[in-house]
Parts: sequence; structure tokens; C-alpha cells
Amino acid sequence: MTPTQRAVGPVHPAAGHTARRPATAGQITGGLWGERRRINREISIPSGWDRLHEAGNFHNLELAAGRTSGEYVNDLPFLDSDVYKWLEAVAWVFSDAALDQSLSDRLQDQLAATERLLRDAQQPDGYLNSYFQVLFPGERFAQLQWGHELYCAGHLIQAAVALHRTTGDTGLLEVACRTADCVVAAVGVQPGQIDGVCGHPEIESAMVELYRETGDERYLNQASYFIDRRGHGLLGDGHFGRHYWQDHLPLRDVPSAEGHAVRQLYLLAGAADLYVETGDDTLLVALKRIWAEMVATKTYLTGGIGAHHKDESFGDPYELPNERSYCETCAAISSIMFSWRMLMITGETKYADLVERTLYNGFLAGVSLDGQRYIYANPLQVREGHVDRGVDGDYQRVSWFRCACCPPNVMRTLASLEHYVLLGSPTRAVLHQYIPGRYAAQLADREVVLEVATDYPWDGTVTVVIASAPHRPWELALRVPDWAERPTLTVNGRKVGSSPADGWWVMEREWHHGDEVVLVLPLQPRYTAADSRLDAARGAVAIEYGPLVYCLEAVDNPDHRLDDIMIDTTVTPEVVPGEGILAGVATIRTAGHVRPRPNSSWWPYSPASAGTSETGEPATLNAVPYYTWGNREHGAMRVWVPTNHII
Amino acid sequence: MTPTQRAVGPVHPAAGHTARRPATAGQITGGLWGERRRINREISIPSGWDRLHEAGNFHNLELAAGRTSGEYVNDLPFLDSDVYKWLEAVAWVFSDAALDQSLSDRLQDQLAATERLLRDAQQPDGYLNSYFQVLFPGERFAQLQWGHELYCAGHLIQAAVALHRTTGDTGLLEVACRTADCVVAAVGVQPGQIDGVCGHPEIESAMVELYRETGDERYLNQASYFIDRRGHGLLGDGHFGRHYWQDHLPLRDVPSAEGHAVRQLYLLAGAADLYVETGDDTLLVALKRIWAEMVATKTYLTGGIGAHHKDESFGDPYELPNERSYCETCAAISSIMFSWRMLMITGETKYADLVERTLYNGFLAGVSLDGQRYIYANPLQVREGHVDRGVDGDYQRVSWFRCACCPPNVMRTLASLEHYVLLGSPTRAVLHQYIPGRYAAQLADREVVLEVATDYPWDGTVTVVIASAPHRPWELALRVPDWAERPTLTVNGRKVGSSPADGWWVMEREWHHGDEVVLVLPLQPRYTAADSRLDAARGAVAIEYGPLVYCLEAVDNPDHRLDDIMIDTTVTPEVVPGEGILAGVATIRTAGHVRPRPNSSWWPYSPASAGTSETGEPATLNAVPYYTWGNREHGAMRVWVPTNHII
Repeated sequence: MTPTQRAVGPVHPAAGHTARRPATAGQITGGLWGERRRINREISIPSGWDRLHEAGNFHNLELAAGRTSGEYVNDLPFLDSDVYKWLEAVAWVFSDAALDQSLSDRLQDQLAATERLLRDAQQPDGYLNSYFQVLFPGERFAQLQWGHELYCAGHLIQAAVALHRTTGDTGLLEVACRTADCVVAAVGVQPGQIDGVCGHPEIESAMVELYRETGDERYLNQASYFIDRRGHGLLGDGHFGRHYWQDHLPLRDVPSAEGHAVRQLYLLAGAADLYVETGDDTLLVALKRIWAEMVATKTYLTGGIGAHHKDESFGDPYELPNERSYCETCAAISSIMFSWRMLMITGETKYADLVERTLYNGFLAGVSLDGQRYIYANPLQVREGHVDRGVDGDYQRVSWFRCACCPPNVMRTLASLEHYVLLGSPTRAVLHQYIPGRYAAQLADREVVLEVATDYPWDGTVTVVIASAPHRPWELALRVPDWAERPTLTVNGRKVGSSPADGWWVMEREWHHGDEVVLVLPLQPRYTAADSRLDAARGAVAIEYGPLVYCLEAVDNPDHRLDDIMIDTTVTPEVVPGEGILAGVATIRTAGHVRPRPNSSWWPYSPASAGTSETGEPATLNAVPYYTWGNREHGAMRVWVPTNHII
Repeated sequence: MTPTQRAVGPVHPAAGHTARRPATAGQITGGLWGERRRINREISIPSGWDRLHEAGNFHNLELAAGRTSGEYVNDLPFLDSDVYKWLEAVAWVFSDAALDQSLSDRLQDQLAATERLLRDAQQPDGYLNSYFQVLFPGERFAQLQWGHELYCAGHLIQAAVALHRTTGDTGLLEVACRTADCVVAAVGVQPGQIDGVCGHPEIESAMVELYRETGDERYLNQASYFIDRRGHGLLGDGHFGRHYWQDHLPLRDVPSAEGHAVRQLYLLAGAADLYVETGDDTLLVALKRIWAEMVATKTYLTGGIGAHHKDESFGDPYELPNERSYCETCAAISSIMFSWRMLMITGETKYADLVERTLYNGFLAGVSLDGQRYIYANPLQVREGHVDRGVDGDYQRVSWFRCACCPPNVMRTLASLEHYVLLGSPTRAVLHQYIPGRYAAQLADREVVLEVATDYPWDGTVTVVIASAPHRPWELALRVPDWAERPTLTVNGRKVGSSPADGWWVMEREWHHGDEVVLVLPLQPRYTAADSRLDAARGAVAIEYGPLVYCLEAVDNPDHRLDDIMIDTTVTPEVVPGEGILAGVATIRTAGHVRPRPNSSWWPYSPASAGTSETGEPATLNAVPYYTWGNREHGAMRVWVPTNHII
């Protein structure tokens, strides 16, 4: 085992067909994300242990370990993975300087107990899966469509890699390697092997990461095999078609994102990892194409992904209904994973822009402000008079789910967030997210350390102080987000004359300790419109403010039905600084009018020429950040609000 | 048994708390509907016999009759009802003067064979249901949520009533009365009875109709019981909630249409029948309210009903996505049933307007032009790149369904269409649909016979000749459809000075044989817009022409992707008379432009001010009647097309 010394966060290229690599260290010290991480660390992750026990996940592993008796709890085959994602979250938390000793001790105990449990449950040849061991003993890799065996193995591997990177703990890594070895032995094209892929991609990234962590090329080859063998019908048609489990076409031939959104995005993230290690351009061409098509035609304003509930899938191009958006929290997470890898590979800001948008909106909405309740699907609209039909969810936050993939996925993402801020290349430190903290990146010969101070996203001023740097010229690159207009930059108080290019503001010089760079991204609320092909948002605008998408909630607009409101885009929206609601977020006030109701006609359709200008009572509209919706009373909500400029 | 002598079509009030009654006789002699009915009679209904045999429906009844052995085919509990709806269609066909002798003989034989089969299958106390007799012998009315026993009984009753009205055949009516008696004995609030309602309403109308046909008040009381007992939780919560099976609130308290669309509408039709016989105003108030809310907020432009696939239900108010509209063909049929009853009760044209709209669009799209293929869900849009996800249907016409409720429902509706044209009150003949034919209505003392000649909907001229009339003044009322502008009317060549009021053009005089009334409804294609609360249609227009909704299909617009097209509403659309495609329908040509694709930006959202005017290559657009869509190549389709007047 030859662990890479520099690896602390997720995704650490070994060979590395990319100039950019993740930061070598990071600490988030405050701000919006600092507070969310504190709640994640102090409330969500500790309660995760309790929820996973209550929900039977640990019990099932104890059954597999022969430590207890009874029935297998819950009938889903991927319950082990929730434990593994929680373990991964714990692993990342160990690198958080803010972790206090008593919690650290408690988590260490829980970790050790879990490690022992997994060791006891693991079979001599490395096989480890409570569902199959308890319910289908001896049956292995025979239900690849729905069994999630490789998916679970992948999450185990990722947890073990994370723990090894943050603590050097080799115990869990040994368990994971034995499981990986069992997979390598059993699945492949050699005689006696099962030629197959998992119905739910995930193991692809995990195998690449395990290769990175151990240097064992068998794991890289296995990842390559898993990606190459998709799209050959190995999984059959299934209830939802081959798209669903990403087996409809070989990845290199796929025109656009399709099928189950999380499966698609985990697969793409894994393929990006594989590209980084192999430099196979045929993969990269496909990844760029799929990302571009997905973002242009199948992504919500919030960065949310997935338009269909029943099969948790992408819809047709431009099919993005707001009240039935699926936008699973896990899809937002896997989108961040994929885009972040593409940023690393290409250095293009659009990937970082989507990471930012998804983090602040589609992802962050997935957990309540108190860190105790989660939401699975993240709609962009809940209508007045919404009825829970027992089908599309009632869009209320709950403390846990029967299928609880999202909560521990949120935990591991928040706990590793410091790694999604800075990249290093031999000549450049690339700061692409603006989160207060201290971050280190490896340049060609030595490390650069940056201290970032900002109240972003509430304030657009970002101060970067060089805390440590090599004594020769290098480039500091700061991202200018897609939404920012007229940004300014000063270095040690002096305005920089050049302009950003391709979304990056790059300054090359010999930096010294204490040099201070101040980027100002002027923040003003803005109205955003959609491509008119997006039927559900046509004739409407959304309010945005920096990276944040805002929404109207009924609770803040109690005098009108939300569905009757039209926004007046000639009115300049005003920011109302934190008023105490929703953990002190800035709210936005603007104006519009309320259409009369009921209509004068019995029929809601009329000659086009007659509908020119609908008017009504003037109204003040109050908007809150989308990520805070549904934290108070249950009621209507809208991101897209019709305007007064309708034909 | 005291059959009402005047009854020939569906719904013949007995006591009758309504001034208007259906026509006493009718023959459709040509035109669009004449041809559709010919195909229904000559192709669809005869092939229905074959399909019902192939699908096992007859086999299952033979199992119940002890005539054969083997497995029950298909696991749906309502398969008998498909046979009954087919029987009802056959019954109505017997009153069609165009039925030729050899087909009549064949249908008589099939009818007689089916009657014998049902008689053999029926148990001594009248119970008749193949599913329960074969699979759950002795278990009766114990699975009211999903069992559809009362639903099936209702369709048996309706078939028998239809047959008795058209042929005087009492054999099937005896079977139906025995079944009805079994229900009356078993279900109710007396000791020993089961207090319950059916998960799928349908028996309510049937029981009222059986009362009308037999004069037996027990059936009317049973209908009243079924309607009163809803909304008391007798069915429990179920998978889709109490709304689904119309058990969430007592009908009189329901604010708006909710739950499974067909269940809701059959229930409302039954309640309207009950109102007609009882004059219970508390019912009428609810029916008017529910209709108004449903039409204003939950009805598609095509008259289609139901926005959710999974539970086949209404959506939230204004939730009418075009690509995921459910709009089941059966929901269109049941909407026509409900609205037609409301027209009879109130005499208000809006009910007839919705009947017309639904007939020509949402309903007629449900069967292919060749009468051999059906569609279950009728979307208003199929996107470019649509993928069949095995979930929402792939929107292709097929020859039969596993759950084949729609095909025989289409058959019985087309076969009885002549009854949906004319109403009679003591003082007035009310012609509310314009279909060429000869129709008779009963006024106070004697019959009025009208001969209608028209090429409607291709031509807006309707000629009505008085073929028989009493020798004293009476009113002829002609509906002026909601869409018609500047209609004109002549009587015997002389222009009538008065104007239509409330949608009716009423002429009172002593009419004579041969008097000729000519109504001209100027027909011009028009652009229609939606209430801007209907998000999915905002910023878009539809093309309409008379009662017809048009759509763009990819096959007629091969040079552009449909999703890229914007319509230019300053261009006047032109009618292109029948060109031979689609059985000679008029097509409509207009113009617009094609937005460039892909977008210049990677992100499909942009500042609202920047999106003012999208332009692109000019394009000619070719539209066809919505009811003809999907009869040629499979491809994209749109009813709502974005306009060039986007913010």
C-alpha cells in the first residue's frame, strides 16, 4: 500500500492527465458554510448514528455478522450504503479543526465499533453485503440490476479512502480492499467470472480512488472494465428501460444525460476519474458533450437535476416542470461531483459556476436549517391548494426516509466541502469558490497557502491574503462568476487594470506573504429569464442575488395567493438585510400585482389579442433564498413568477 | 316493469327536475361524425368482439359460467366491464339506420351469445362478477376499494338499459335487474348489509337509469345512498389517498374536482342524474361549483382532464403540464357525460361548449382515424427527443390495452352520439351540437323534427329545416359557440334582426314544415392564449379553428425541430382545404421563426432584460387538427407554441 502523502480530500489524481489538482489542505472558518458545517458536525452527523440504528441499518449488519437474530429490517437492498456514507462523513469531519474533543472521542468510538462490526460481518473472501448475506446467502452478483451490491461496495471503499486520507486509519481500508478484491475476482470477462455492471453506478469512482490510495492498478482496470461494459444490455430491459440503469448505450456514444439522474451522474463522475488516470480522450469528448447537453436542456435554475419522480430520471430536453421537478438532493450532490471533476480536467469556469449554483441552491435546500430534517425531492414550485396525492411527495422535510440515501450524502458533502474551494496546478492557484477559510494548494515546487475572508454570498467582497508562497512568480486565478457584472480587483490596495478572461481573473507575479487581493463582485438582486424553450418558465422571471436563487413563500406573502401574483420587472428589487428570520438571511423585496380571481370567464383560454395586459391590485412581494424554503409553515412556494409582460 | 316509451338514448329523466330532455330520436347522416360512426360501427365494434376474446374477457366469464376451465386471464378486477361497454355500444348501434343487415345479424348473434353466457354465469341470487366468482368465490363486496364489483354491475346495467331502449330486448335487462337486486339487498345500512361505496363510481348513474327504465324506486334510493355515503371514509386511506376514490369529503362539501379524474366525473354524472330525479338543490349547488372550478383551473384546451399519470388524477389548480397531461380518453368521455347532464339541467351554453370542445378534441383524439388503434393518455405535447421511460406512456396508438377501459368506452360514446345533439323542453327545441342528421324532440304536446345539414366543423354554415312541428308557436334555440364571432342567422332567407343572448339564438314563432333556418358561424383560424396562471402555456398560443384545436406535428414541419419554433401572431393563419392527408381535414398554415440551437451560452437562463426578442430563421408552420395527431409517423407534437412576444 502506497498512500499518496498529499491526499486529504476526495479525488486525488495519481498519474493525473490534468494540470489541476485539489487543494492539499483546507479549513473553512466561518460564514454561511461554516455555520452549515457546524450544524452538520454537531447535529446532523451525531444524529445520523441514532437514525441509522433506529432504521435498522446497523441491525442488518449485526445480523450479517451473526451477532444478533431477528428479521432483516426494511426491504431495500442498499441499506449498508447509508452506513458507509455516514462513515465517510465522519472521516471527513476528523480533518475539521473545529471538531471538539468530546465529539471527536465519541465519533472515534462509533467509528471503531462500526469497523469491528464490518470486520465481523465480512466473509473470509472479502464479500460484505448484509442484504445478500442475510436474505440470499451464497447468492452473489446475480441480481446486478436491483441488488446494489457493487454500489454498496463502492460506498464502503469511498468511506475507507476518506478515513485513510484524514486519519491514516488502515483498518477500514483493509476491509474495503478485501471487498474490492472480492469484486475484482468475481466480476469480469475471465472464465468463471460474472460479466456485469451494477444497476446503480458508484463503484467506478470508488475503484479509481482506491487505485489512487493504494497504487494497485487492478482497481483502475476494474473501473475501466465497469465503464466499458455499460451499454451492452448486460442488465436487460427492466421496468424503466435500459436508460434507467445507464445501459442503453456505451458511455462514449451517449448524446445527452438520460435515465436515472443519480446513476447517470455517478457514472459520469467515475468516468471523469478514469479519464484523469488514463487520459483517454474518447471519454473526455463524451463527458463534455453530455455535460453541455444536460446543462443546456435538462437543468433547473437551482442546479437541480431530474424532472421525473417515478423513475427519478431526466426528462426530455427542456422538460423542466417546476411543480413536479424531482431534483433529488443526491442528484445535486452527484452533479457537483461531476462538475467539480470537469473543472479540474478542463479549468473552465462554467463547471465551477454550476458547482456554485448547485451548492447554494439545489443542494443546500436538501437539509433544514436546523440540520435535523431532509427533503428528497426539491421542487421549484408548490402550488396554492397543493394536495398530497401519495405520489410525488408532499414536499415536506422529514427527519429520515425509508430510502435514506440523501441524508448521509448531505453529511459527507458538507463535511468535505473545504476541498471544493481551491485547486493547484504547477503554475497556478485556482480559487473557484468563495468561502472564508485557509486553503493550501500544491504548485510545482511548493505549497501556496491562501487566507480567504468574505461574507459571501451576503457581500460580494472577497479578500485573499497570501499566507505562504514560493519565492518566484506564480499565478493566482480568481473566478468571476457568470452572474457578476463589473467586478473590480485590487492588489495591495491598487486597482488591477486588466480584465478577467474566460471567467478567470489571473494575476501573475512573485507574491509575498501578506499580499492582499480584494475581489469585489457587485451584488444586486436581478431578474432572470429562461430560454423560451423551457415552457414551464416562459413568461416568468426568477429573482437571483449573487449565487442565490430566491423564491416567494406564502408565509412571507400572506395577503395574496402566490399563484395570482405577477412580478413587475420595471421595479428594482431591494435587499432587506437579515431580519432575524431564517438564520438571518437577506430577504428581497419587490413589487407586482395580483390578478383577480376567479376569472370573469368560465373558460381560462381566450383570444390571444385580448390577453394583452392583465392587471390587478398592486402588491409588495417578499422573497427568501430558495435554500431556506419549507423551514417554516407549510404552504405555497414559487421560484418562477409570471411577469406583467404577457402577450 | 314500466319502460318509458320515449326513451331511446342515454339519460331519460323520469320525474325530471329539469325542463329539458334528450331528443326522442336521432339519425346522424354524414359529415365528420357520420364517417367516424361508420368506422366505429363497421370496424371498431366488430373488432371489439375479437379483441375481447383475445384478451380473455370472454374466457373469464366462461370460467364463471363453468363452461370452461383454466386460469383467470389478466389480474385486473374490472375486465367484465369492458364486455359490458362493448355490449352497450352494440345496443346503440341497433338504433343506427345505417347499420346493414349482415352486420346487424352478426351483432345480434354475438349479443345473444353474450346474453346466454351472462345468464349462465350469473348466480341464483343475481350476483355476477367473473373475477370474484373465479378467484374469490363467496367473497362479495368485501374489497370495495379495488374490487370494482359495483362498477362492473353499473356497466352491465347501462348496457341492459341501452339495449332495452333500442330493441326492447328484456333478456339482458332481467340479468341486470337481478344483479341490481343483489346489490340492493347486500349493500346498505340495514342490519346484515355491508355499508359501503365502490372505489370506482359508475353504479350511481346506472342505478338512476335503471329506475328510469323500470320505475322501481329501490334503484333510485340505492343511487341516493351511494352518493350520500361517500366522503365518510368507508374506503379507508388507500395508496393514493381518499381523494383518489372520491371518499375524502361528502360530495356536497367538495370544493373542486379532485382525485382520479374518471372516478370524479362518473360520480358527478351520477349525482346530476340523481338531482334530475330528486330536485335536491344541495346537490345542484355542489355540481355547479365543482364544474366551474374544474373548468377554470383543471381543464386543458382540448377539454382533456387529469394532469397526473400515476394516480390518473387531477393536479393542483392550474397545474396543466402539456407533455405530461394525462387526459385519459375515458376522462374526456365522462366529462362529456357530466357536462351534457348539466346542460340539460341548467340550459346554459357553457356546458354545451365544453361538450363540443371535448368531443372534437380530447375525446376524438382517443381513437385512430382507421378505428383500429386507441390511445389512453392524450398529451398536448410530445417533445423532440422524447424517450419512452416505461412510465408515462410513449404516446403511441395501440390496438388494445391490458387495461382496456378506453376502447369500448369510445365505441359506446360514438354509437350513441346522435343523442347529444338536440334537447326538447315543453316550449323549446334546443339544438346545441351541429351534426348533419335528423333529430326529433318532444315539446309539451307533440314532437318536433329537425333536419340539419352542414359541413361543420369545416364550414360554419348550419342549415336547419323544420321537418315536422306543432301548429302553434314554439322556440327554436341554436347555440352560438363561445368561440364564434359575428354569427348571422336567416329564416327562410330573411336575416334575423335580434342577437343571440347568453349564447343562444332563440326564435319563437309558429314554424311550418319546410321552414329553413341558416346559422352562419364565420370560421377563421384564431390564436388562443391561456390564463397566465397556467404556467405551461404562458407566453404561447394555440391555433384553433371553430371547435377544433390544432397542433403542429413534426411530420408536417420536417425542416425544424418543433421545440425551436416560435409562432408569429402578427401573421394571419390561412386555411388549406383538405389536401388528402388525414382523411381530408383542413390544415392550417401560418408563420414564425426558428430559434437557433444550440444556444450561444452554456446556461439556458439569462438576465430578463437581455432576452427581449429572440429571433431566427423564418419558417412556415403547418398545423393539423389535434384529433388527428399520431396517425402517421411517430414524432414531436405541440398544441401550445411559444410566440415571439416574450419578455
